[in-house]
Amino acid sequence: QSGELFVLTYGALVAQLCKDYEKDEDVNTCLDRMGYGIGVRLIDDFLARSAVKKCRSYSETADMIAQVAFKMYLGVTPTVSCSSAAGNEFSLILDKNPLVDFVEELPAERASLCYCNLLCGVIRGALEMVHLPAEVTFLQDRLKGDAVTEIGITFLRKAED
Amino acid sequence: QSGELFVLTYGALVAQLCKDYEKDEDVNTCLDRMGYGIGVRLIDDFLARSAVKKCRSYSETADMIAQVAFKMYLGVTPTVSCSSAAGNEFSLILDKNPLVDFVEELPAERASLCYCNLLCGVIRGALEMVHLPAEVTFLQDRLKGDAVTEIGITFLRKAED
Repeated sequence: QSGELFVLTYGALVAQLCKDYEKDEDVNTCLDRMGYGIGVRLIDDFLARSAVKKCRSYSETADMIAQVAFKMYLGVTPTVSCSSAAGNEFSLILDKNPLVDFVEELPAERASLCYCNLLCGVIRGALEMVHLPAEVTFLQDRLKGDAVTEIGITFLRKAED
Repeated sequence: QSGELFVLTYGALVAQLCKDYEKDEDVNTCLDRMGYGIGVRLIDDFLARSAVKKCRSYSETADMIAQVAFKMYLGVTPTVSCSSAAGNEFSLILDKNPLVDFVEELPAERASLCYCNLLCGVIRGALEMVHLPAEVTFLQDRLKGDAVTEIGITFLRKAED
Protein backbone atom coordinates (compact mmCIF):
# COMPACT_ATOMS: atom_id res chain seq x y z
CA GLN A 1 0.00 0.00 0.00
CA SER A 2 1.43 3.30 -1.11
CA GLY A 3 2.04 5.96 1.52
CA GLU A 4 1.61 9.04 -0.69
CA LEU A 5 -2.03 9.49 0.28
CA PHE A 6 -1.00 9.43 3.93
CA VAL A 7 1.84 11.89 3.38
CA LEU A 8 -0.43 14.35 1.55
CA THR A 9 -3.20 13.95 4.11
CA TYR A 10 -0.70 14.66 6.87
CA GLY A 11 0.29 17.80 4.98
CA ALA A 12 -3.35 18.88 4.88
CA LEU A 13 -3.58 18.35 8.65
CA VAL A 14 -0.52 20.49 9.33
CA ALA A 15 -1.82 23.17 6.95
CA GLN A 16 -5.16 23.22 8.76
CA LEU A 17 -3.47 23.60 12.15
CA CYS A 18 -1.37 26.44 10.75
CA LYS A 19 -4.63 28.14 9.80
CA ASP A 20 -6.06 27.46 13.26
CA TYR A 21 -3.07 28.60 15.31
CA GLU A 22 -0.95 31.62 14.70
CA LYS A 23 1.99 30.50 16.84
CA ASP A 24 4.22 27.66 15.69
CA GLU A 25 4.50 26.51 19.29
CA ASP A 26 0.75 25.97 19.44
CA VAL A 27 0.80 23.95 16.21
CA ASN A 28 3.68 21.87 17.57
CA THR A 29 1.82 21.25 20.83
CA CYS A 30 -1.33 20.31 18.99
CA LEU A 31 0.50 17.86 16.69
CA ASP A 32 2.21 16.29 19.69
CA ARG A 33 -1.10 15.94 21.54
CA MET A 34 -2.82 14.41 18.51
CA GLY A 35 0.11 12.06 18.04
CA TYR A 36 -0.13 11.01 21.66
CA GLY A 37 -3.76 10.01 21.17
CA ILE A 38 -2.78 8.06 18.07
CA GLY A 39 0.13 6.29 19.80
CA VAL A 40 -2.12 5.21 22.65
CA ARG A 41 -4.33 3.42 20.11
CA LEU A 42 -1.62 2.32 17.68
CA ILE A 43 0.35 0.34 20.27
CA ASP A 44 -2.19 -2.51 20.26
CA ASP A 45 -1.95 -2.79 16.50
CA PHE A 46 1.82 -2.73 16.74
CA LEU A 47 2.06 -5.43 19.40
CA ALA A 48 -0.40 -7.67 17.57
CA ARG A 49 1.27 -7.21 14.20
CA SER A 50 4.89 -7.35 15.22
CA ALA A 51 4.56 -10.11 17.82
CA VAL A 52 7.53 -8.57 19.62
CA LYS A 53 8.39 -9.79 23.09
CA LYS A 54 8.95 -7.56 26.08
CA CYS A 55 12.11 -5.51 25.67
CA ARG A 56 14.73 -6.03 28.36
CA SER A 57 16.43 -2.67 28.12
CA TYR A 58 15.95 0.87 26.94
CA SER A 59 18.44 0.13 24.20
CA GLU A 60 16.38 -2.80 22.97
CA THR A 61 13.25 -0.65 23.08
CA ALA A 62 14.87 2.07 21.00
CA ASP A 63 16.00 -0.51 18.45
CA MET A 64 12.49 -1.92 18.29
CA ILE A 65 11.00 1.50 17.59
CA ALA A 66 13.51 2.15 14.83
CA GLN A 67 13.73 -1.26 13.18
CA VAL A 68 10.22 -2.60 13.59
CA ALA A 69 7.81 0.29 14.21
CA PHE A 70 9.28 2.87 11.81
CA LYS A 71 9.69 0.19 9.17
CA MET A 72 6.11 -0.95 9.64
CA TYR A 73 4.38 2.41 9.61
CA LEU A 74 6.68 4.68 7.62
CA GLY A 75 8.74 2.26 5.56
CA VAL A 76 12.08 3.60 6.76
CA THR A 77 14.58 2.49 9.38
CA PRO A 78 16.32 5.20 11.40
CA THR A 79 19.77 4.68 12.85
CA VAL A 80 19.80 4.48 16.64
CA SER A 81 22.47 5.95 18.86
CA CYS A 82 22.66 6.17 22.62
CA SER A 83 23.46 9.68 23.71
CA SER A 84 23.83 9.54 27.50
CA ALA A 85 26.13 7.78 29.90
CA ALA A 86 23.06 6.95 32.01
CA GLY A 87 21.77 4.89 29.10
CA ASN A 88 18.31 6.46 29.04
CA GLU A 89 18.71 8.88 26.11
CA PHE A 90 18.59 7.78 22.51
CA SER A 91 18.55 9.39 19.10
CA LEU A 92 16.75 8.10 16.05
CA ILE A 93 18.47 9.50 13.00
CA LEU A 94 16.54 9.65 9.76
CA ASP A 95 18.41 10.15 6.51
CA LYS A 96 15.12 10.09 4.69
CA ASN A 97 11.83 11.22 6.18
CA PRO A 98 8.91 10.10 4.03
CA LEU A 99 6.48 12.44 5.83
CA VAL A 100 8.12 15.46 4.19
CA ASP A 101 8.24 14.02 0.67
CA PHE A 102 6.01 16.76 -0.71
CA VAL A 103 7.38 19.62 1.41
CA GLU A 104 9.96 21.81 -0.28
CA GLU A 105 10.83 23.90 2.75
CA LEU A 106 9.08 25.60 5.64
CA PRO A 107 7.69 29.04 4.84
CA ALA A 108 9.72 31.85 6.43
CA GLU A 109 6.89 32.74 8.82
CA ARG A 110 6.76 29.16 10.09
CA ALA A 111 10.43 28.80 10.97
CA SER A 112 9.73 27.23 14.39
CA LEU A 113 7.27 24.66 13.11
CA CYS A 114 8.12 21.05 13.95
CA TYR A 115 6.36 19.75 10.87
CA CYS A 116 6.54 16.09 11.89
CA ASN A 117 5.83 16.64 15.58
CA LEU A 118 2.95 14.16 15.38
CA LEU A 119 5.58 11.40 15.31
CA CYS A 120 6.98 12.47 18.68
CA GLY A 121 3.52 12.28 20.19
CA VAL A 122 2.89 8.87 18.63
CA ILE A 123 6.10 7.46 20.14
CA ARG A 124 5.37 9.06 23.51
CA GLY A 125 1.80 7.74 23.59
CA ALA A 126 2.79 4.23 22.53
CA LEU A 127 5.63 4.06 25.08
CA GLU A 128 3.39 5.26 27.88
CA MET A 129 0.99 2.41 27.19
CA VAL A 130 3.78 -0.07 27.82
CA HIS A 131 4.71 1.78 31.03
CA LEU A 132 7.74 3.54 29.63
CA PRO A 133 7.13 7.26 30.13
CA ALA A 134 9.44 9.25 27.90
CA GLU A 135 10.12 12.67 26.48
CA VAL A 136 10.26 12.69 22.71
CA THR A 137 11.33 15.74 20.69
CA PHE A 138 12.95 16.72 17.44
CA LEU A 139 16.61 17.57 17.98
CA GLN A 140 17.46 18.19 14.33
CA ASP A 141 15.29 18.61 11.28
CA ARG A 142 16.35 18.68 7.63
CA LEU A 143 13.39 20.95 6.96
CA LYS A 144 15.17 23.51 9.14
CA GLY A 145 18.47 23.13 7.36
CA ASP A 146 20.03 20.48 9.59
CA ALA A 147 22.06 17.74 7.93
CA VAL A 148 19.79 14.98 9.21
CA THR A 149 16.49 14.60 11.01
CA GLU A 150 16.97 13.46 14.59
CA ILE A 151 14.34 12.46 17.11
CA GLY A 152 15.47 12.34 20.73
CA ILE A 153 13.89 9.90 23.18
CA THR A 154 14.61 10.27 26.89
CA PHE A 155 13.23 7.51 29.06
CA LEU A 156 12.11 9.12 32.29
CA ARG A 157 12.42 6.29 34.78
CA LYS A 158 16.04 5.89 35.80
CA ALA A 159 16.08 2.26 36.76
CA GLU A 160 14.74 -0.51 34.57
CA ASP A 161 12.03 -2.74 35.97
CA GLN B 1 3.59 -0.53 4.92
CA SER B 2 0.76 -0.63 7.41
CA GLY B 3 -2.08 1.84 6.97
CA GLU B 4 -3.13 2.17 10.62
CA LEU B 5 -1.05 5.29 11.19
CA PHE B 6 -2.74 6.86 8.18
CA VAL B 7 -6.21 5.85 9.33
CA LEU B 8 -5.64 7.27 12.83
CA THR B 9 -4.08 10.45 11.44
CA TYR B 10 -7.08 10.88 9.18
CA GLY B 11 -9.29 10.52 12.24
CA ALA B 12 -7.32 13.28 13.97
CA LEU B 13 -7.82 15.51 10.94
CA VAL B 14 -11.59 14.97 10.93
CA ALA B 15 -11.73 15.56 14.69
CA GLN B 16 -9.84 18.82 14.30
CA LEU B 17 -12.22 20.02 11.58
CA CYS B 18 -15.17 19.12 13.80
CA LYS B 19 -13.65 21.39 16.43
CA ASP B 20 -13.12 24.13 13.85
CA TYR B 21 -16.55 24.02 12.23
CA GLU B 22 -19.85 23.68 13.98
CA LYS B 23 -21.84 22.62 10.92
CA ASP B 24 -21.33 19.17 9.40
CA GLU B 25 -21.76 20.70 5.96
CA ASP B 26 -18.75 22.93 6.54
CA VAL B 27 -16.62 19.98 7.65
CA ASN B 28 -17.74 18.04 4.58
CA THR B 29 -16.88 20.95 2.30
CA CYS B 30 -13.51 21.39 3.93
CA LEU B 31 -12.66 17.68 3.61
CA ASP B 32 -13.70 17.72 -0.04
CA ARG B 33 -11.61 20.81 -0.70
CA MET B 34 -8.55 19.32 1.04
CA GLY B 35 -9.04 16.10 -0.87
CA TYR B 36 -9.19 18.02 -4.13
CA GLY B 37 -5.80 19.57 -3.41
CA ILE B 38 -4.42 16.13 -2.60
CA GLY B 39 -5.86 14.54 -5.74
CA VAL B 40 -4.33 17.25 -7.90
CA ARG B 41 -0.91 16.26 -6.57
CA LEU B 42 -1.51 12.52 -6.19
CA ILE B 43 -2.37 11.97 -9.86
CA ASP B 44 1.28 12.28 -10.92
CA ASP B 45 2.31 9.67 -8.40
CA PHE B 46 -0.53 7.45 -9.55
CA LEU B 47 0.30 7.70 -13.25
CA ALA B 48 4.01 7.10 -12.62
CA ARG B 49 3.42 4.17 -10.31
CA SER B 50 0.60 2.43 -12.12
CA ALA B 51 1.91 2.98 -15.65
CA VAL B 52 -1.70 2.93 -16.84
CA LYS B 53 -2.50 3.95 -20.38
CA LYS B 54 -5.12 6.48 -21.37
CA CYS B 55 -8.60 5.16 -20.64
CA ARG B 56 -10.86 4.91 -23.68
CA SER B 57 -14.19 5.21 -21.88
CA TYR B 58 -15.76 6.41 -18.65
CA SER B 59 -16.35 2.80 -17.77
CA GLU B 60 -12.65 1.98 -18.13
CA THR B 61 -11.80 5.05 -16.04
CA ALA B 62 -14.14 3.98 -13.25
CA ASP B 63 -12.63 0.48 -13.28
CA MET B 64 -9.15 1.98 -13.10
CA ILE B 65 -10.06 4.06 -10.05
CA ALA B 66 -11.54 1.06 -8.29
CA GLN B 67 -9.10 -1.68 -9.24
CA VAL B 68 -5.81 0.19 -9.43
CA ALA B 69 -6.08 3.44 -7.45
CA PHE B 70 -8.13 2.20 -4.47
CA LYS B 71 -6.01 -0.92 -4.30
CA MET B 72 -2.81 1.12 -4.39
CA TYR B 73 -3.70 3.75 -1.81
CA LEU B 74 -6.26 2.07 0.45
CA GLY B 75 -5.64 -1.62 -0.09
CA VAL B 76 -9.25 -2.38 -1.05
CA THR B 77 -11.06 -2.87 -4.36
CA PRO B 78 -14.58 -1.46 -4.63
CA THR B 79 -17.13 -3.00 -6.96
CA VAL B 80 -18.06 -0.75 -9.89
CA SER B 81 -21.52 -0.40 -11.35
CA CYS B 82 -22.82 1.90 -14.02
CA SER B 83 -25.94 3.67 -12.88
CA SER B 84 -27.14 5.70 -15.85
CA ALA B 85 -28.30 4.93 -19.35
CA ALA B 86 -26.14 7.81 -20.56
CA GLY B 87 -23.11 5.90 -19.34
CA ASN B 88 -21.58 8.77 -17.39
CA GLU B 89 -22.63 7.82 -13.83
CA PHE B 90 -20.87 5.14 -11.83
CA SER B 91 -20.95 3.80 -8.31
CA LEU B 92 -17.99 2.48 -6.38
CA ILE B 93 -19.32 0.12 -3.74
CA LEU B 94 -17.14 -0.58 -0.73
CA ASP B 95 -17.93 -3.55 1.48
CA LYS B 96 -15.01 -2.62 3.66
CA ASN B 97 -13.77 0.91 4.17
CA PRO B 98 -10.36 0.93 5.85
CA LEU B 99 -10.57 4.65 6.62
CA VAL B 100 -13.24 3.99 9.26
CA ASP B 101 -11.46 1.05 10.94
CA PHE B 102 -11.22 2.88 14.24
CA VAL B 103 -14.59 4.64 14.08
CA GLU B 104 -17.42 2.97 16.00
CA GLU B 105 -20.20 5.24 14.81
CA LEU B 106 -20.79 8.92 14.22
CA PRO B 107 -21.79 10.88 17.31
CA ALA B 108 -25.48 11.87 17.31
CA GLU B 109 -24.65 15.56 16.87
CA ARG B 110 -22.61 14.76 13.76
CA ALA B 111 -25.27 12.82 11.88
CA SER B 112 -24.67 14.67 8.60
CA LEU B 113 -20.90 14.28 8.62
CA CYS B 114 -19.43 12.59 5.53
CA TYR B 115 -16.50 11.21 7.48
CA CYS B 116 -14.58 10.05 4.39
CA ASN B 117 -15.41 13.04 2.22
CA LEU B 118 -11.71 13.63 1.61
CA LEU B 119 -11.83 10.63 -0.77
CA CYS B 120 -14.44 12.32 -2.97
CA GLY B 121 -12.22 15.36 -3.24
CA VAL B 122 -9.17 13.25 -4.06
CA ILE B 123 -11.01 11.48 -6.90
CA ARG B 124 -12.42 14.78 -8.19
CA GLY B 125 -9.03 16.49 -8.11
CA ALA B 126 -7.22 13.61 -9.78
CA LEU B 127 -9.85 13.29 -12.52
CA GLU B 128 -9.74 17.00 -13.23
CA MET B 129 -6.02 16.80 -13.83
CA VAL B 130 -6.62 14.27 -16.61
CA HIS B 131 -9.34 16.51 -18.07
CA LEU B 132 -12.27 14.53 -16.78
CA PRO B 133 -14.32 16.94 -14.66
CA ALA B 134 -16.67 15.01 -12.42
CA GLU B 135 -18.97 15.26 -9.43
CA VAL B 136 -18.04 12.84 -6.68
CA THR B 137 -20.22 12.31 -3.59
CA PHE B 138 -21.13 9.71 -1.02
CA LEU B 139 -24.46 8.10 -1.90
CA GLN B 140 -24.48 5.59 0.94
CA ASP B 141 -22.35 5.26 4.05
CA ARG B 142 -22.17 2.37 6.49
CA LEU B 143 -21.29 4.87 9.19
CA LYS B 144 -24.80 6.26 8.70
CA GLY B 145 -26.47 2.87 8.87
CA ASP B 146 -26.51 2.05 5.17
CA ALA B 147 -25.77 -1.53 4.15
CA VAL B 148 -22.74 -0.53 2.10
CA THR B 149 -20.59 2.50 1.43
CA GLU B 150 -21.19 3.88 -2.05
CA ILE B 151 -19.33 6.66 -3.81
CA GLY B 152 -21.05 8.14 -6.85
CA ILE B 153 -19.02 9.54 -9.74
CA THR B 154 -20.77 11.56 -12.44
CA PHE B 155 -18.60 12.51 -15.39
CA LEU B 156 -19.69 15.96 -16.47
CA ARG B 157 -18.77 16.03 -20.13
CA LYS B 158 -21.38 14.20 -22.14
CA ALA B 159 -19.35 13.15 -25.09
CA GLU B 160 -16.05 11.36 -24.83
CA ASP B 161 -13.05 12.91 -26.50
